[in-house]
Order: sequence, then C-alpha cells, then structure tokens
Amino acid sequence: MMIMKRDATDEDIKRVIREIKVHGLKADVSRGDFRTVIGLVGDESKVPFDNFAIMPGVKEVVKIETPYKLISREYGRAADGLSGASKTIDIGNIHIGNGEPIIMAGPCAVENKKQLFMIAEAIKKAGAHILRGGIFKPRSSVHSFQGVGGSDRKSAEQALKWMRDAGKEYGLPVVTEVRGEDHVDLAAEYVDILQIGSRNMYNQDLLAKVGKKNKPVLLKRHFGAGIEEFLSFADYIAAEGNKDIILCERGIVPVGKGKEYTRYTLDLAAVPVIKKETYLPIIIDPSHSTGRRDLIFSMSCAAIAAGADGLMIEVHYNPQEAIVDGRQTITPGELQDIIKACRKIHSLVKPGVYA
Amino acid sequence: MMIMKRDATDEDIKRVIREIKVHGLKADVSRGDFRTVIGLVGDESKVPFDNFAIMPGVKEVVKIETPYKLISREYGRAADGLSGASKTIDIGNIHIGNGEPIIMAGPCAVENKKQLFMIAEAIKKAGAHILRGGIFKPRSSVHSFQGVGGSDRKSAEQALKWMRDAGKEYGLPVVTEVRGEDHVDLAAEYVDILQIGSRNMYNQDLLAKVGKKNKPVLLKRHFGAGIEEFLSFADYIAAEGNKDIILCERGIVPVGKGKEYTRYTLDLAAVPVIKKETYLPIIIDPSHSTGRRDLIFSMSCAAIAAGADGLMIEVHYNPQEAIVDGRQTITPGELQDIIKACRKIHSLVKPGVYA
Amino acid sequence: MMIMKRDATDEDIKRVIREIKVHGLKADVSRGDFRTVIGLVGDESKVPFDNFAIMPGVKEVVKIETPYKLISREYGRAADGLSGASKTIDIGNIHIGNGEPIIMAGPCAVENKKQLFMIAEAIKKAGAHILRGGIFKPRSSVHSFQGVGGSDRKSAEQALKWMRDAGKEYGLPVVTEVRGEDHVDLAAEYVDILQIGSRNMYNQDLLAKVGKKNKPVLLKRHFGAGIEEFLSFADYIAAEGNKDIILCERGIVPVGKGKEYTRYTLDLAAVPVIKKETYLPIIIDPSHSTGRRDLIFSMSCAAIAAGADGLMIEVHYNPQEAIVDGRQTITPGELQDIIKACRKIHSLVKPGVYA
Amino acid sequence: MMIMKRDATDEDIKRVIREIKVHGLKADVSRGDFRTVIGLVGDESKVPFDNFAIMPGVKEVVKIETPYKLISREYGRAADGLSGASKTIDIGNIHIGNGEPIIMAGPCAVENKKQLFMIAEAIKKAGAHILRGGIFKPRSSVHSFQGVGGSDRKSAEQALKWMRDAGKEYGLPVVTEVRGEDHVDLAAEYVDILQIGSRNMYNQDLLAKVGKKNKPVLLKRHFGAGIEEFLSFADYIAAEGNKDIILCERGIVPVGKGKEYTRYTLDLAAVPVIKKETYLPIIIDPSHSTGRRDLIFSMSCAAIAAGADGLMIEVHYNPQEAIVDGRQTITPGELQDIIKACRKIHSLVKPGVYA
Repeated sequence: MMIMKRDATDEDIKRVIREIKVHGLKADVSRGDFRTVIGLVGDESKVPFDNFAIMPGVKEVVKIETPYKLISREYGRAADGLSGASKTIDIGNIHIGNGEPIIMAGPCAVENKKQLFMIAEAIKKAGAHILRGGIFKPRSSVHSFQGVGGSDRKSAEQALKWMRDAGKEYGLPVVTEVRGEDHVDLAAEYVDILQIGSRNMYNQDLLAKVGKKNKPVLLKRHFGAGIEEFLSFADYIAAEGNKDIILCERGIVPVGKGKEYTRYTLDLAAVPVIKKETYLPIIIDPSHSTGRRDLIFSMSCAAIAAGADGLMIEVHYNPQEAIVDGRQTITPGELQDIIKACRKIHSLVKPGVYA
Repeated sequence: MMIMKRDATDEDIKRVIREIKVHGLKADVSRGDFRTVIGLVGDESKVPFDNFAIMPGVKEVVKIETPYKLISREYGRAADGLSGASKTIDIGNIHIGNGEPIIMAGPCAVENKKQLFMIAEAIKKAGAHILRGGIFKPRSSVHSFQGVGGSDRKSAEQALKWMRDAGKEYGLPVVTEVRGEDHVDLAAEYVDILQIGSRNMYNQDLLAKVGKKNKPVLLKRHFGAGIEEFLSFADYIAAEGNKDIILCERGIVPVGKGKEYTRYTLDLAAVPVIKKETYLPIIIDPSHSTGRRDLIFSMSCAAIAAGADGLMIEVHYNPQEAIVDGRQTITPGELQDIIKACRKIHSLVKPGVYA
Repeated sequence: MMIMKRDATDEDIKRVIREIKVHGLKADVSRGDFRTVIGLVGDESKVPFDNFAIMPGVKEVVKIETPYKLISREYGRAADGLSGASKTIDIGNIHIGNGEPIIMAGPCAVENKKQLFMIAEAIKKAGAHILRGGIFKPRSSVHSFQGVGGSDRKSAEQALKWMRDAGKEYGLPVVTEVRGEDHVDLAAEYVDILQIGSRNMYNQDLLAKVGKKNKPVLLKRHFGAGIEEFLSFADYIAAEGNKDIILCERGIVPVGKGKEYTRYTLDLAAVPVIKKETYLPIIIDPSHSTGRRDLIFSMSCAAIAAGADGLMIEVHYNPQEAIVDGRQTITPGELQDIIKACRKIHSLVKPGVYA
Repeated sequence: MMIMKRDATDEDIKRVIREIKVHGLKADVSRGDFRTVIGLVGDESKVPFDNFAIMPGVKEVVKIETPYKLISREYGRAADGLSGASKTIDIGNIHIGNGEPIIMAGPCAVENKKQLFMIAEAIKKAGAHILRGGIFKPRSSVHSFQGVGGSDRKSAEQALKWMRDAGKEYGLPVVTEVRGEDHVDLAAEYVDILQIGSRNMYNQDLLAKVGKKNKPVLLKRHFGAGIEEFLSFADYIAAEGNKDIILCERGIVPVGKGKEYTRYTLDLAAVPVIKKETYLPIIIDPSHSTGRRDLIFSMSCAAIAAGADGLMIEVHYNPQEAIVDGRQTITPGELQDIIKACRKIHSLVKPGVYA
C-alpha cells in the first residue's frame, strides 16, 4: 500500500493511481481520518514499489504480507491512525460492529407471506435487529426442496417482495442469500444485505458480483476453509470497492470418528483472531454450526463472550412445522432469552477483550 | 425410480412422465440395454409411489436410498441388467472408463499460444490422450494472477481458440475449467470437456448450467467434501439430463499439526468406493493433491493400482518457468515414464479389482 | 444396568452381583438417593439380560446403548431419580461441578521450588482454586526438555514434594499429569488430582491404573478424538470403581490449509453436549487449545458462557522466562481479570443453560 | 550431529561422547560404511556446537533441523555416504526394506491355539512372510472383548506361546502388539517384533520401554498425527539405541460430513514422503484404514505402487467367525491373490520411484 502524506494533493493521489494502472493493477483508495492510503488490487509481484516511494505526496510504501490486504487491520490502521478502530457498518439505524450485539433472526426458508410476517413480528418483539430468510436455498441434494426462489424467477421475486415488505412493516432491515450469479441483481433490489453462503465462499465470480453492488455483504466462512482462506476470499469483495463486509463463522467440518453430536465444529477462537487480523465485524451462526436447538442458548452466550459482534439464528413460531432445518430452529421466546443474556454478557466482556 | 416392463410401450412411458410432472418433479428417462427406467428429479417426499406401481407398463417402483440417485450404480443396474456395467464416456476416439487409463495433461495455466502448442505436442508424444489448460484460474487471492481469461472476455476467447486449435493440431480433445456462470456458454463453444474445479463443487447453479450443455463434464471433489456430498452434487449435473460426468479426486484438507509435506491428503480409497457406488468413471489429480513434482510418479502408479480410470497431471516443458504451480509440474519426459508404468499396472490390476 | 427396587435387600443385590460374575463380567454398584443400580463392566454381548429381569429385588433391566455406560447421565439418573443431578467432586473445600467455576492455574512445567511457590502464592491471590504444575512433561520430541521428573525418580519425587508443600502453604489442592504407568503410584502419594494428558487419553492401561487409585482424575480429550471416543475411554476409569472424573476439552486437530492462527480448534460445543451425555463436570483448557496468551481472556469467558465447570490455565509470574510454552502463558494479573469476568458470566448463564 | 573423520580414533569418539554427556545429553553412535556419526539425544538448545567442531577427529558439526533426527535420512546419509541407502531390517531370513514387499498377515485377535495354527498354515501357503495376531487388544470400549491377554497374565503368556509355536511350526517370524508398559518384558520373550498400536503412538514411556529391548519395533502412526509428529515419536525408540523400526501408516481421522464409507482415510502419499525423510521401511495396513474387506485388494496394490515396503493384513479362514473386526478380514485365498498382484506391481515401480 502507498501511504500518502497528510498534505498530499488530489493530484498526487491521482498520479499514484495512474501509475498503479500502468502496471495492470487496480487502485483501492481509502480515505481515512488521518490520511489517504492507496491499496493495490491484483498481482503485486511485478510492481516496482521503490519507484512509488519517491513520488510526490507519498509518505511510505508498505507491503502487506498477508494475502488479505484490503480488509487487514494493518491497512485500516494506516488510514485511521494508530487506534485502528474497527469498522461499523450502518444499515438504517442498525450499527454492526463496535456496539451491542446485532441479532439476525428468522426462518431458515421463507415459505409464504403469512409465515414470514408472523416470524418477523415475533423476532422484532423478542428484540432482534435484522430479519433473515432463505429464498434461494443451497441444498446438498437436487432431490430436496430448493427454496421458494429455487424454481422460477417469478416466485423468487414474489418472495423477495415479502421480505422487503415484512422488513418495512416491522422496522427490520432484511438479509437473504444469493446462491448463484443470476440472483444478485434481483435480490439487490429488495434486500438490505446480500448473503454469501458457506458453500459459495470460494465462488470468486459471485463475490466479485456482490462486491459491485452498493450493499453490505454477509460472507460466511466455508466449512472446509482455514481462516487465512476465509479472509483472502473476503478481499475479492473488497477489491470491488465494497468494504461493508460482515464476516460470519458457522462451523467447520468435524474431525474424528463416531457419532456426530453437532453438525459442524464451531470455531469460536476465530472471533478474537479475526478481530485482530481485520477491521471487519464478525458474527456467529449457532444454528447451522450445531444443528441442535438445545445448544443455541449456550453457544450464543459463548459467541458473545468470545467477542462476536452479533448472531444469526434460525427462528420459527413453530419449529416442528418448518420445512427445512426444524431440528435447529428455536422459538421467539427462546430467542428473547438469548438476546437478554447476550446483552448482559456483552456488557461484561466489552472492556476486557481488547484492553 | 420406476422400472418399466421390457414390453412397456412409449405411451406407458409418457404416462409415467406426465404423472411425475403432476407432482412437481422432473422425470429422468434412462433407456438401458434391458429396459427403460424412469428416475425422479426433485423433492420425492410427497410422491405417492404406490400409485405408480399399478400404472400400465410399470414393473416395479424402487426408492433409491442414497441422496445421489441418478448416478448411482443401483439406477444404472436397473436399466442395464444385473451386470451393471460402468459407463464409458466417448470423446472422439477417446473412451473414458472401462479401458486403459486416460491421461489428461497440460499446463496449469495457459500462458500464450506458443507455450500451449509446445506442451500439446510434447504430451501427445508422451502418450497423453487429452489436453488440459487453465484459462479462468480460481485463485485463493485476488492479488494473484487470475489466468489469461481472468481479465476480459476477449482474452478469454483468444485463449479458448488456442486450446481448440492445439487440440486439433495434435489430435487431442481439450478440457478447461469454467469458474463462473458467465464462462459456460463461451467455453462450451471451444472445448470438449467442461471442468468444474474443486472450489465450485458446491456451486449448484454452475452445475445446473453445465448440465444443460451437451458436453461431458469433469467434476472435481471439493477438498472439504465427504464422498456422499461429492456424489450428491454430481446429481445436480445428471438432473439436467447430462450423465457424461467424469469424477475427479484431488485431495482433501489435511488433518493434524505441524509441517505440511503435501498440500492435501489424496484419498485413494475413494476410487474403489466411488466405483461401487456409481457407474461413472473416476480419475485422480496427483498434481494438486500433493503439490510436489517428486511425488507424482508414485501417486499416479498408486491411483491406477487403486482402479482409477485416468489421471490429470500438470505438465510444462520447463516447470521452473510456469507462472502458476511450477512446484508441482512435471516434464513431458517424466509424463512418458508415468504413462508407461501406469499402463502396465493397469493391465495387472484390471482382472483383480472387481472379480 | 439392573435397576433394583427401592426395597431390594442386600442379599438381592449380592445375588445379582454374583450372577454378573458368573458371566465373566464385573459389577458396578451405584447406590443412589433413590435406589441401587448395578452396572456391567465388560463384554455384555453374551449376558442373558432376560434372566436378570426376574431375579428377586430387580425392578427393571435396561441396556444402555451408548458405549460409555457408567458415566452416562442415563445411568446416573436411574440411581438418583428423574432430576439426574450432575456429580460434584469434592476436594477439601473445593467443589467441582454444579457451582462457581473452578480455576486450576499454575506453570506449564515446574522448574524449581522458588518458581512454584511464587506462582502458587500469586494464583491464590488472583482467586484460583487449584494449583497445576507439570512434572512429567509429555513432549513431541525426545530432543526437548522432558520436565524435572522426566529424568529420574529422585528428581520427580522432589518436584512432587514441592507441589504438595506449595499446595499446603497456600491452601490449594494440587494436580499433576502422570505420563506413564510408572508415575501413578508415586504421584498419588503427593497430589490431590491425577491428570491424564491428551496424548494418553487412549492409553487404557494407564486409565485402569489411575482408576484404581482413590483420587479424582482429570482426563483430557485427545486432540484426534470424537466425543464418543472421549467418553468411552473415561469409562475405563469408571470401570475400576472411580467415578470422580473431571473431563477436560483442550482443542482438537485443526482442519484446513494455510497459516495456523491457533494451535488447536477449541470445541466449545462439547461442553453442553457432554453435560447432556454424562453427569460429570467438564472444564476447558484455553492455554493449550489456543497456544496464544492474547486469546486466553476471550476463550475463558466463552467457555464459562458455554457452561463449563472450570478452567485450566497456564500462569507464570514472568511468561517470557518460562522454559515451556511461554507463548501461551499469562500473568497472575491477567488471571485475576479472567476470574472476575468468569464469575459474573457464570452467574448470568447459570439459570438459562439447562432450564 | 558430529560427523567424525574417516580416520577418527576410538579415543576421539569416546572424547566426543564424554563431552556430550557433560552437557546432560546422551550420545547416539552410528558407525556407517564410510564413517562414524554421533547424534545427540536430549535438549540440544544449550549445547555449544562450536566447541565440538574443533575437537580431534571431528570432521564437521551439523545441526539437523527436523525434530526427528536419529531416523532422518540426513543422519543416515552422513554415516553411509552420499547414496543414503535405506535400512534393511533382518528377522531370520526375512528382510524388510529395499526388497520385495513383506506381507504380515494373521487374525485381528488370537482366539485359541487351533484358530491361530490354522491361520498360520494358511497364510504361509498364501505366501505371507510374518504372522500377526492380537493378544492385548486396545479397544475403544471397556465393554468390549479385550483380547485373550486382556484378562490375566497367565492367559496372555499362554497366547504368546501359541504365537511363538505357530511361528516355529510354519517358519514365520511373529509380531504382536504391546498395549501397556507391563506387556513389554513378557511379549519380548516370545515374539520377534513388538508392535506399538496407533493409539499408543504418543505414549513415550512405552516407546522408550520397547526401545530398550533388542527387538525390531513396528510403530503405527496415530490417526490424529501429522507426519512430523509420527516421525518425532519414532525418535523416542531410536533414542534408546534401537533403530530397527518399521513404520506403518494405517489411516487418519476422516474429514467431512455424512456417511463414512471407510473407517479412516488412508494417506498413501505418506509412503514416498516418509521414504524421503527417513531411512526406515514403511508398510501399510489396508485392513484397519478401510475397515472393508472389499477394498483390501485395491488398497494393497495402491500401497505397493506408492512404494510401500510391505503390508499388514487381517486374515481369517472364516472372516464371519472372527470375534473382532470380521468386516475387514479377508480369506487366505484372497491374500494369495493380493500377494501375487503386489509382487508384480513392485517389480514394475521399483526402478521408477526414486530414479
């Protein structure tokens, strides 16, 4: 990255950008509280960094060693000063990061308008902040229900409208997963946050596509991905100029033999690790990681105690009735208990974690 | 699946198909050597199987218990009789499955026309059957080289033409990876086999897209996927009517601490397992799984000894010069030694494996 | 297990025990608050359960399906009534299980008397309950320091005396790891809790040996073990009549490629799972699982929030000076902060977790 | 290690050994074809290597960077000259390493004299070289059959005598697993090779105990261990002066979700890797790794093709009748087919692998 002097002129900045383009890369301009920093997008290996160091307005040239560069704390700190404050992503009057835990809740799969509105009302009352609902369901078998948006565009659009309307009705921003490239434009018209599911974390063409939208993105870690890979793929979104990225840990593939007590292994140490490595907020999905409603309370509390910025939880007014993933779905009443406990835990650990 | 009587009429078959559609599913019609079998595509849970059993021309209704149904040996056997012969995929005069090991070789990344033609000539001489070459490179970092097709459509098309022309020049069918949905139509115009890379195994929208093309598909197992998942996702391709699927094992995520001696853990037992579970050919990629050129000979021999139908190997006339993955790339001379050894091993194990 | 009637006589019980021995098994007699339950130790496959059902004093014969039987909640509940209270292990006036989190702290390796006493004093002041210290160090290389007890019996006994004396001086029960069978008798003379390290979890001869001692045992989960295996091996201790077993999760082998940000993956969902499956207390070791002192606070809080009964933490007055594992060792001051936060979190989650 | 000059005197060597002891370490004297090399056993961190370089008779002082030093190819090469020949372990007229594949076969568990003799005769006829049989069975549940040696010393000794006698009768060296430290002395009186099972790989006290016996040791890789750990623990045996170590890969913990098609993941790339890293022979156990008799042929062939020096296979004249692990046990007839195929494959790959 090229760290510009405080008094660097716009012309200085433009000159650096032009020079970066000469070498076939894109420039990422990050105007911080203290100074402007210009990151590189693309293959750095042939960039003559020394030449940049002597350009007018350039204070210092620093090579970021991690493969994730644009979301790294190092990059954020260069622009924002030593404090290196974490990013807060604002959606209406909801602020993700640096504040109280944000709770995203809702049905695993949107089934119909009535179901969605009933759940939206219930989670709002329980204290949740954002409505989640799956329309394009990624499923491990073509012989399973693929979500109401899985069949045709018209049904998908209908369901997206339900989401938008339920959000408006109850004052909840809404988030849904885009499973394929074809879904991005359509979903972006109706929802506030575009979610990339675990199975698509490595889908760099899809990441680039959502990166081009002017919407926050919720990126789930792939269940076979190390943390370094997770963050490297988040940089595909950032490389398109979109740094409103909410990271989400949702469990990694289980190791070891015998009975599976949980669907995945929830890697909670990823929370403090990712907060040190990046300036982005990180949330936890206790529903998919455990696959068991009786563990949601414990793992939600643990997540917040580990420093997570929020939770994504599957809620249904009647879990037994849910078409998909009823086994891991809780009731609005249970959600309310979790939110209360998490708020208290958050207030306790807040000062300690990074002091 | 609905197993039809030998003397079932076309009208009987059409009637069953119509009835399947009534329940919101698609029918997969498989005309075998012995009889026609009709598979179901979609959510079977609400299908009244008993009603089908008494329809004219229906011999028997069988529920396939595995989540992968259309590629299962059980399904293949129903149509082809007890022998349950494995499928042979024919591409020109190359036959994948049930015969001598098919060797796909070529550069990790296509760099330019000259490089590609030189390598094509060399691998042909070494005895390889199919030319591979990466044009749209999936990379773990946006800050790495993304392949000559990674930047713009024009360059991609240029490189695809090189592939087609090199294939014609040296009598080699060609295969390339399609990384995003936008690549499918374009690549299908120029290459003989469409490859889905490991990172996209879970990308069901991409799988459906290649399934609609009238081309064989090479599907790599995701490095975090169990075998059941791998086969279930292959069914997304088959569900579009395309059963010319070549499966490829390329290593799974390493377990355990300390130094990584190989990039991934090559799961060779997957070969006989998959041959029992499905009627599809399965090949091995020793290059990406080990990440070490000094292990390619051993693991290629081991793969063929385990019963693999072929290999996919990265070859460059000068591995040190390769832009991507030179560490795991071998020379044409080394390839020739491998092909010779593998042919002999194949002739030894052939009768034993499934006798 | 044979559930006896409330009014079963001693003679009824003895008759059942004799009959169990006739079939080559051992009997585990568990006298609960409500009734006596007799478990089986050994190969049940040839036991004629029906014969037992009609013996005098026998209320019911129940086959426990899990491979871990003697520590299962099902077994505990049969004796203790429906409430199925968890076990509390009492060591002096320390009570592990069902109460406030118990903190075991101390140096990774005991180095000398002065070091040990200084740390003991400091952790006592910080609020810890039990002193830990490694004397027989399991190491992954024969070319590393093996602990002061690693060389000869005399040094080992000397170090064990330091442990005992430090414990007395500061009112702290003490725990140390026994690495080989030869250490058990010796260590049992001096310490209050015998620890089995992760690497020895599968060492059934060592488990049987500590099971015969009349001392609580702290059993760490192997880093390659599933939960079912972990609990099954704990049954080797219980089978010797010793059910004062403290289970400890300390991280499982990492999955995935690239940089290791933590040494192991801490599986916190194991806490509520194990509390449902058994009646034993479970604690967490945030030191070995993360290998990073900057993560100890977060993961300790998360562990207690998940419902853990305690923590085992490496503490040194000067972490930089520690011979072994300084990177993951915290100061007494940091320990005090953790204990304070954990107590508060515990009081918050207590009612919620199992309500 | 201290590489001595060719003309170093015995006195030079003794002087170096004394100096090593002064620093609290043990010396490992390796007299090779070309020169004597003296290795260090213990914590090298405080050894003043420079002082040794100027001692009489010392040619060169080299620090081996791997944690496994005494079994490293680097150490072997220093003594044996540039060729760095691999070690051959001789047991009677059986030679393990550098020759045709050695087949160890026999029942999972020794059941009685007749069973053992019948199997011994059958495997001899099939072409096997060494008789295996489990007497002290490591089991994951205390509620399972623990082997005929599991109950008391007298039965164990009886079974060991059967092993010795069956070996003599049919001209087969014999190998059995020692599960606990108490078994070592007893078993060493009767068998030719002492086996350390997978679960005990990390049991360094047991490793040291077998290292002190003048018998070859067969060390199985733990299913949760990386290769570096595996080799590091083998050094615990070598450190006692015993370098007749046969390494054995037997599968690592499976990764990924869903149905387990094999019990473990057989890591065949470990074969060429370990042959490069050490001078020791490495064999494969296809029985425990797959857990399926229908995969033994394929995986045996693959193992030999990968360069393995031998196989360990469970055989029973009537697999259905076997008390333990019948599912993975083959018949003598199947063994014969495997041996024939493996010999041919071996002759094919021999020149290629390390040329």
